[in-house]
Amino acid sequence: MITVLNPSYSSSSDSTLTTKSEALAREATQKVLQQKPGGLKGIEASLEALSVMPEELNLFKNRHSRFVVVGIGGSSLGIQVLAEMKQASNFQFIDNVDAYHFEQLFETMPEPEKTGWLFISKSGGTIETLTALEFIEQELSTKNISLSEHSLVITEKKDSDLYRWSQQKQVLFFEMPVSVGGRFSVLTEVGLIPAWLMGFDMKALRTGAMEAYNASDVLAKVTSETLKSWQREEWITVLWSYSSRLKSFGLWWQQLWAESLAKKVDIQGQPAARVSTPLPLIGATDQHSVLQQVMEGARDKLVVFLRVQEAEAGKSLLQKSQMRETALLQGRNMGTLLRAEAEAIQQALSEVQVSNISLQISDVRDQSVGYLFMFFQLWVMCLGEAIQINTFDQPGVELGKVKTKKILSGQL
Amino acid sequence: MITVLNPSYSSSSDSTLTTKSEALAREATQKVLQQKPGGLKGIEASLEALSVMPEELNLFKNRHSRFVVVGIGGSSLGIQVLAEMKQASNFQFIDNVDAYHFEQLFETMPEPEKTGWLFISKSGGTIETLTALEFIEQELSTKNISLSEHSLVITEKKDSDLYRWSQQKQVLFFEMPVSVGGRFSVLTEVGLIPAWLMGFDMKALRTGAMEAYNASDVLAKVTSETLKSWQREEWITVLWSYSSRLKSFGLWWQQLWAESLAKKVDIQGQPAARVSTPLPLIGATDQHSVLQQVMEGARDKLVVFLRVQEAEAGKSLLQKSQMRETALLQGRNMGTLLRAEAEAIQQALSEVQVSNISLQISDVRDQSVGYLFMFFQLWVMCLGEAIQINTFDQPGVELGKVKTKKILSGQL
Repeated sequence: MITVLNPSYSSSSDSTLTTKSEALAREATQKVLQQKPGGLKGIEASLEALSVMPEELNLFKNRHSRFVVVGIGGSSLGIQVLAEMKQASNFQFIDNVDAYHFEQLFETMPEPEKTGWLFISKSGGTIETLTALEFIEQELSTKNISLSEHSLVITEKKDSDLYRWSQQKQVLFFEMPVSVGGRFSVLTEVGLIPAWLMGFDMKALRTGAMEAYNASDVLAKVTSETLKSWQREEWITVLWSYSSRLKSFGLWWQQLWAESLAKKVDIQGQPAARVSTPLPLIGATDQHSVLQQVMEGARDKLVVFLRVQEAEAGKSLLQKSQMRETALLQGRNMGTLLRAEAEAIQQALSEVQVSNISLQISDVRDQSVGYLFMFFQLWVMCLGEAIQINTFDQPGVELGKVKTKKILSGQL
Repeated sequence: MITVLNPSYSSSSDSTLTTKSEALAREATQKVLQQKPGGLKGIEASLEALSVMPEELNLFKNRHSRFVVVGIGGSSLGIQVLAEMKQASNFQFIDNVDAYHFEQLFETMPEPEKTGWLFISKSGGTIETLTALEFIEQELSTKNISLSEHSLVITEKKDSDLYRWSQQKQVLFFEMPVSVGGRFSVLTEVGLIPAWLMGFDMKALRTGAMEAYNASDVLAKVTSETLKSWQREEWITVLWSYSSRLKSFGLWWQQLWAESLAKKVDIQGQPAARVSTPLPLIGATDQHSVLQQVMEGARDKLVVFLRVQEAEAGKSLLQKSQMRETALLQGRNMGTLLRAEAEAIQQALSEVQVSNISLQISDVRDQSVGYLFMFFQLWVMCLGEAIQINTFDQPGVELGKVKTKKILSGQL
């Protein structure tokens, strides 16, 4: 489970605003945990249903040695997290329509006949995913491979291009729950089926996810810290994860935060509260990149450190240091340095009055992965509840879609 | 070469400020191109010297089938860009001190005796890099492999841990020019030696880099657009690259921008001008992630689109569309969609008054890679010159280093 570490730094001086934020955060947290909005019940149902996987999936797994996930946004980012945490090097991702990149993928594909394809789209009408599908099918047919025989589809059960294709070609099909939005779908069929193919323990994922419901105190705390940060006009929220295995997690969180919270109007139709832009960083790596901006740039950031106890340890000890710089590490493991750096940067930020808070989790194994996903989803839901917006839509992306079609049809 | 595409959107209404920014940008650009600060001459010297590679490097290359680059920040990010652009899958990177990640790397290493190690650090005293070196040496010795026989070192020629190690163990050594800072070093030994190992054409890289000196008009334009954006208090600068092969480039640019521009004081010792935080995105992918925040969040961003003509093309055409959503793509290549999306998002942003400018380059092949690196370095130098800061130091990262040592020695 996630704990909040001490110390932290917050410069809020207006005690009335602070008290108000804390009350608001507690209230929002309670409401989210009780009412379970945004398809949380759909997520629970998926977690329960998929604790035993259907036999067809087992056959699909056994027939393939490599898997390519074709999806974009919420139909890819969470699965990339799972692959990174499990170091599943037999998973690849097509989450763009870059022709050059696409052609290279096919040129370097070792065993196309042993490759399984996962097409994922909530609506079933995502143009990038469908375009990739068409080009993949065309490309494989030149090798006399039938794409549909090597595919599975995860989408809603409704009249969409992807659903129809799966039915016409009798493709292995998994229904995505209607109530769950794409960016909240990693703990539904969307993420759980790839997770099982990677070797995740379904029960552990579920146990971890359910545990996060008990984190009401921590959720209220991080929610109120975020609200206070916005009152201080800190319009960038940094998630600074101290583990190389949380790179994709940062990008998953970035989508979750950006799409869920930035809304033009609130649920009353009034101008919505301004929120922060999410910026994911990795420690210690980005101490050699964005740290200078965090330390000497404007005080416009809340830094949320996410530390992993397991990454701050290590099996082997440095037996004999031969260098001045590493002398202090003799007889210690590599994680000792990572831990020292995380603590040092937290203290340095506090010293120059950059707002920060530190979260810690024991590891990034299966149960913790379930916990992490659910915890961060709940955090975002609590924030959305607190500022009274619709956390689950993304109206701002429509204009680009309309214009894309107009350009393709020559109307623009 | 890079061109500025039309249309763009900028809401600056104060014509006096606009005129002033443009004059300032032109002046700064001229000065940078004439005076060549920050080791530009050192870069030119490296590019010239390494147009022919020494024979020892050829031997090093032939003895190894895989390479691991051990470095962090400016000693890694640029090389990651090169590896991504060349799809050099035989290159791996250690740019952190995450014990779990490190152990996994060794567990899955296919041929440790055929692995060549590149240790890179400007100062030669980077604690993360040296710690990794010590653990690698220890780990390999259990397999009876001598690390020093399979290594090369790139660092300054001075009394540092890394330089001493290279001399004591007679490791293949390349000197890094003293005048060039780490984050500006990709076109010196730091990047050029790995680039050559990946198969880059040294002459093409150099030709491209030199060509960027001729881009004074474009440089003045992007510099003035950035200055105007800061006047409008747009404190986030987005580099939105429409190509999957520019992911690492975005992270390289993020370091360059963040470390170079965010300074507490200017060269007179006065409080420095506030600058933006860099946020790299990928198109079309991040249309399904951060776009909602860009469209409906606060108007606190300048979006710089970076488009690649080659990514907007594609060899194969979609012969027969079988779906409603892809009907408009029949008979067209995949890049048609990417281009339409890039244009659509640019227009959508303009329509909701989000500041944006579009840059285009023909491809990301060798010559263009040299150009891209140099162009973006010059842009940052022009900005630093315009706001009269020291673009080449990073004083804000020192406090964390001091505290790390104090924590390791038990003083904190």
